[in-house]
Amino acid sequence: MAQVNPAGATPAADPNSIDPRVFPPSARRGSECRELQLGGARATELVEQYGSPLYVIDEAAARDRAREVRVALESEAERIGTSATVYYAGKAFLCVEVAQWMAEEGLAIDVASGGELAVALAAGVDPARIGFHGNNKSEREIARAVEAGVGTIIIDSEVETERIARAAAAADRRQRVRLRVNSGVHASTHDFLATSHEDQKFGQPLSEAPRLVEAILARDSLEFVGLHCHIGSQIFATDGFRESARRLVGVYPELERIAGRPIPELNLGGGFGIAYTSAQAEQAPEVAAIARQLADIVAETCAEAGVSVPQLAFEPGRAVIGQAGVTLYTVGTTKPVLLAGSDAAADPADLGFAERLYVSVDGGMSDNARPALYGADYQVRIANRESDADPALVRVVGKHCESGDIVVQRDVIPGDVRAGDTLAVAVTGAYCWSLSSNYNYVPRPPVIAVSNGSSRVIVRGETEDELLAKSVIPAPVAPANAG
Amino acid sequence: MAQVNPAGATPAADPNSIDPRVFPPSARRGSECRELQLGGARATELVEQYGSPLYVIDEAAARDRAREVRVALESEAERIGTSATVYYAGKAFLCVEVAQWMAEEGLAIDVASGGELAVALAAGVDPARIGFHGNNKSEREIARAVEAGVGTIIIDSEVETERIARAAAAADRRQRVRLRVNSGVHASTHDFLATSHEDQKFGQPLSEAPRLVEAILARDSLEFVGLHCHIGSQIFATDGFRESARRLVGVYPELERIAGRPIPELNLGGGFGIAYTSAQAEQAPEVAAIARQLADIVAETCAEAGVSVPQLAFEPGRAVIGQAGVTLYTVGTTKPVLLAGSDAAADPADLGFAERLYVSVDGGMSDNARPALYGADYQVRIANRESDADPALVRVVGKHCESGDIVVQRDVIPGDVRAGDTLAVAVTGAYCWSLSSNYNYVPRPPVIAVSNGSSRVIVRGETEDELLAKSVIPAPVAPANAG
Ligand SMILES: Cc1ncc(COP(=O)(O)O)c(C=O)c1O
Ligand SMILES: Cc1ncc(COP(=O)(O)O)c(C=O)c1O
Repeated sequence: MAQVNPAGATPAADPNSIDPRVFPPSARRGSECRELQLGGARATELVEQYGSPLYVIDEAAARDRAREVRVALESEAERIGTSATVYYAGKAFLCVEVAQWMAEEGLAIDVASGGELAVALAAGVDPARIGFHGNNKSEREIARAVEAGVGTIIIDSEVETERIARAAAAADRRQRVRLRVNSGVHASTHDFLATSHEDQKFGQPLSEAPRLVEAILARDSLEFVGLHCHIGSQIFATDGFRESARRLVGVYPELERIAGRPIPELNLGGGFGIAYTSAQAEQAPEVAAIARQLADIVAETCAEAGVSVPQLAFEPGRAVIGQAGVTLYTVGTTKPVLLAGSDAAADPADLGFAERLYVSVDGGMSDNARPALYGADYQVRIANRESDADPALVRVVGKHCESGDIVVQRDVIPGDVRAGDTLAVAVTGAYCWSLSSNYNYVPRPPVIAVSNGSSRVIVRGETEDELLAKSVIPAPVAPANAG
Repeated sequence: MAQVNPAGATPAADPNSIDPRVFPPSARRGSECRELQLGGARATELVEQYGSPLYVIDEAAARDRAREVRVALESEAERIGTSATVYYAGKAFLCVEVAQWMAEEGLAIDVASGGELAVALAAGVDPARIGFHGNNKSEREIARAVEAGVGTIIIDSEVETERIARAAAAADRRQRVRLRVNSGVHASTHDFLATSHEDQKFGQPLSEAPRLVEAILARDSLEFVGLHCHIGSQIFATDGFRESARRLVGVYPELERIAGRPIPELNLGGGFGIAYTSAQAEQAPEVAAIARQLADIVAETCAEAGVSVPQLAFEPGRAVIGQAGVTLYTVGTTKPVLLAGSDAAADPADLGFAERLYVSVDGGMSDNARPALYGADYQVRIANRESDADPALVRVVGKHCESGDIVVQRDVIPGDVRAGDTLAVAVTGAYCWSLSSNYNYVPRPPVIAVSNGSSRVIVRGETEDELLAKSVIPAPVAPANAG
């Protein structure tokens, strides 16, 4: 069988391997029956105790990675004579415990709604270490953020200057604010546009920044701290980050002139790409490399522009929490489809396999919408055992009534995968629970944290009764109409 | 401004118009201040009473449409000398009240999970009038369905024959079952494949039906009633339905031979397309026309094949509930983007407008994931007032931290749309609440039913506190670590 796809991706040589570049560091196969262990806990025991599907977060992996990302960004900032604040982007996955881990590891928290703010506050996070985002914050959300003493609010549109100023004045506070701008750099399209008039809902054109900053400075109840720009998500190439940073720093001299003082901060957003599969592992950028390149370009551009280097801020979400998460599923059915005789156009990504094995699990697009939303790739392994059966090309699908209900588009695992097997899908820490739904009245699984062989629920799962209780129950159907 | 797009779609001449082909029949502008009314209730009063965003279902529209669809399919079946059962596909939108409406209007209910089954049973729906679907039913779901006395279980894979037979035997029942097959007709791709080996998770190849039916017939606890096929969703062209029906009937003689008796039923699934926008209204098929053509082809193919015409069954979801739903939102911010100077490639669908107005509302992809999932189109109107301001090209976007968070990709409405306006997005009855999430900890809005000027909650909304309560709260962060 041809084992190379056009993107240069090769499946792992061993379809039982637990690749440490995608699974959390604690993931390993135990010596007995070669079962997957996560944080020292056996996958099948977790499923027995908490049910299936199950979101598992490796606490040490999340904490270590948070610290690693923070230290990488801080030390590069230090190298160019400034400091860095690393906000954990809560939209990726937030609950009270995770917010606490992040705070304990020295990260600030970026929240994008009143609900996320409530979680961070319930976690006891210092409000001054919270950044509040959103293209359409309600007046109520703004008032709550101001009253809670949120460190920075990111202004996304002209009208928000007025709204936040009013809320701050009413609360008798001076609110620190950033202005979100577009730099014209599109991470997704790899386009560097000549214009910063991006056709998207977030932010204001960089060219408008001077005018908008002037309006902010005119408000006594606001303290302008700097620009914010987030160029996209799951970014592998660093040149977009560099170009965007260069453009932002480029307007700092004019902002300084308007403010009559240095602009203290520059927030470069999140979006650091990670490997979801072994095939992506070679290409995924090191945060340290991104940090170094961003520090260099900021230092260089500041020197050219004759402004002092601002404090830097970042908002990684996925890069912090993604690889700490693994979802466990149980296989219900399998179905082979002959690719030769099927409607599937010969796709080199199918690696020359003659057959695709559909493996149906007990979750799906309700607990992981990313394949349906973005065509995202994932990697899967049989968790309850190893097998030396011939490798098969599999597509892991969910139990929902929808053909796009795919969990893992394609991977190669032992072909004897069968009903009752436990599957582990890697890198589900970010944007899985947070985007989860109850499609087909499927209750959401709990999220558990594992560490040092122990486990505990950090986000409660739902029951069918809870979902049913959403219906208001009126008088029963008249029997005459039932048939 | 050019007013024609390449698909031949023209925006409504009047950007205030409430097109009865997309909005529910009761939707109209009141004589006073020209506000949108739904089921006799004023949009702004609904928002005042229940909050915003708000899912509104026009009860009469849902009931009338359910009856209309049922009668159309039944009368065509009758014309060819048989009968029809119309299942409402609950996955589109199910709650206890809606299940009761459907039962009262003479429809059966198609459920796709244990949760949907629980809702239908809680509604008092006659279990014999329930069909149970799913590519990966759990043993527990199967046992519950059998014990509840569910009318038909649809077998999706070979192993389910065994599982359902065992559950039925254990419950001392004879369970009616259908076999789900693929006909090789792809509604989405407009392909009619020579093979029925479709590269998808659902169903078995039609060519395998004889063997699989034989296995079903060998089980005493199972009663085989016929084949099932669902070729896709949002289908506009009727030739796919016809070709698929023709292929299915084509194997009935062989199945008759194997069974030694006529096969009583043929279930042709759902998928009838509807108009989401005025531009689609011309092309959307009439259910009556689909019904007539399907009846014709079934009658014809049965005659050719020398088998008696089976009873027909259908499973429309979207076509029943889609247009009964309207979502109300409140505008928070607006932002014009110059298309000429932006990164937007000149797109004829933008109708020659020089500017796109981003209109941010207080919901988004959490309450309607279809634009993000499928690039689905919707239509929007200002609900709280009419306006003779110049029309603007708008994109209605949500409040989530994601650039794909789009509610209405493009429409043309009065250009003075502004913060505080109530917007009404049409045709949100199907696959909106059911696919909803809590992304960014945004609580789900309630669903209300309106009828004859009165309104009531049929699905409770969520509160932020409920979402926060999902977090297990451990000991607070040590203050030393918070800074
Ligand atoms: C403003 C902002 N900051 C940070 C992030 C986090 O991105 P990522 O998780 O890719 O690092 C996002 C993601 O959407 C964002 O919109
Ligand atoms: C088996 C089956 N029946 C019926 C339906 C309902 O389809 P629609 O709502 O498009 O009519 C679906 C939709 O996914 C389905 O999978």
